[in-house]
Amino acid sequence: MHIDVISNIGEARSDDLLLKTVIVIDVLRATSTIITALAHGARGVIPVETVMIAKEQQLPGDWLGGERYCKPIPGFNLGNSPSEYMQPRIQGKRILLTTTNGTRGFQKAIKAENVLAGALINGKACAQVAALLRRDIVILCAGTQDTFSLEDGLCAGQLVHECEQLLGDVELKINDFGLAMQGSYLYAQSNIESTLLNCTNGKKLSKLGFRQDVEYCAQLNCTDMVPTLHNGTLVPFSKMS
Amino acid sequence: MHIDVISNIGEARSDDLLLKTVIVIDVLRATSTIITALAHGARGVIPVETVMIAKEQQLPGDWLGGERYCKPIPGFNLGNSPSEYMQPRIQGKRILLTTTNGTRGFQKAIKAENVLAGALINGKACAQVAALLRRDIVILCAGTQDTFSLEDGLCAGQLVHECEQLLGDVELKINDFGLAMQGSYLYAQSNIESTLLNCTNGKKLSKLGFRQDVEYCAQLNCTDMVPTLHNGTLVPFSKMS
Repeated sequence: MHIDVISNIGEARSDDLLLKTVIVIDVLRATSTIITALAHGARGVIPVETVMIAKEQQLPGDWLGGERYCKPIPGFNLGNSPSEYMQPRIQGKRILLTTTNGTRGFQKAIKAENVLAGALINGKACAQVAALLRRDIVILCAGTQDTFSLEDGLCAGQLVHECEQLLGDVELKINDFGLAMQGSYLYAQSNIESTLLNCTNGKKLSKLGFRQDVEYCAQLNCTDMVPTLHNGTLVPFSKMS
Repeated sequence: MHIDVISNIGEARSDDLLLKTVIVIDVLRATSTIITALAHGARGVIPVETVMIAKEQQLPGDWLGGERYCKPIPGFNLGNSPSEYMQPRIQGKRILLTTTNGTRGFQKAIKAENVLAGALINGKACAQVAALLRRDIVILCAGTQDTFSLEDGLCAGQLVHECEQLLGDVELKINDFGLAMQGSYLYAQSNIESTLLNCTNGKKLSKLGFRQDVEYCAQLNCTDMVPTLHNGTLVPFSKMS
């Protein structure tokens, strides 16, 4: 069984994801937000690439969420801060979400057999689902503007490590980038919060007033919610199995 | 002062290297071989891109060295195994070297202010020279066929870490990829040999009979030799300063 980690969306080719289990990671903040929304009762999250598509696809009752370059989008109900997705009114809502990098990852994974949303907050649960599916796994780090982002790499390392623990009976072929991320995660494991606060996006978000988001997204395994893509909508995996 | 690590040659743009100190890394095996050749008395190593250019530029007395896909090149004096570059007859020789990935890194760095050759075997010494030059540093991992190779990433992490130790008085901005490599190196630090034997190129070379090369290249800081590019030829840094 292969586990490949891809460093950013610009490096990913849709054909390489064919028939695999793809885990899309955008720790700061798209996938952390999606997981939080579903964990708080949202019915589904539809990742869309543009603001225009979000507005076109909006049905009565749907909410629009997202950001561009860490800032809210005019006319949208929600930004991209996980804390906004914890409110009781999120219950039963369908949300169309567009973010700078994260939603592009889901578009790339269109030919995959299974698509999951991973973040540090659900890493263990996400690895459990991926291991259960027994397909080759591709861990796709969203990154930022087609460059690598440390927080996504750490989460990729967490997923590689959890998969290795779970699949002890299976011969695993982990690509070199995955091995490097696993080492990086294991080194940072006990200092994830300070590592995130000191990486490029952590610093940027803190400066913009979102330090609490970074701290929230740096928590390891605080939820069992694993979103999976079903007909273009991210829904809780448990409902699918 | 900035320290940026670039994951493979395909990711590097010559203009981004302008006026900087660039450290080219190809642990398995080009830069380990170049360092070894100079440490054993070779007069200089000229990295050239093609077999044809090597033959064209050869002057009487010059040796040709290199490999294509880990295999020797017909008509060449030497392969790309560091052990071949330890022989007494290497003394005073000028060597034209062409390898699959490593020499391309030096071509990319053509606009840099300083170009050094780094590997695990000279990491500390290489960082000392780079720190001395007080320019922004770009650490360029050669990688393999435009993908990341773990051994180069670990060496990049070693260099970042050594630079951080040496430049304690300077404000350093390390890119996210550099931070990830530093963590990965610090995690693997006490098991570098087994880590190299288990990465893609380490396995491939071992299978081809070059396990001893991998073991040799996995040694940390066993030489103070730091090759630097001077008019297209790699020569010992000490002779330049």
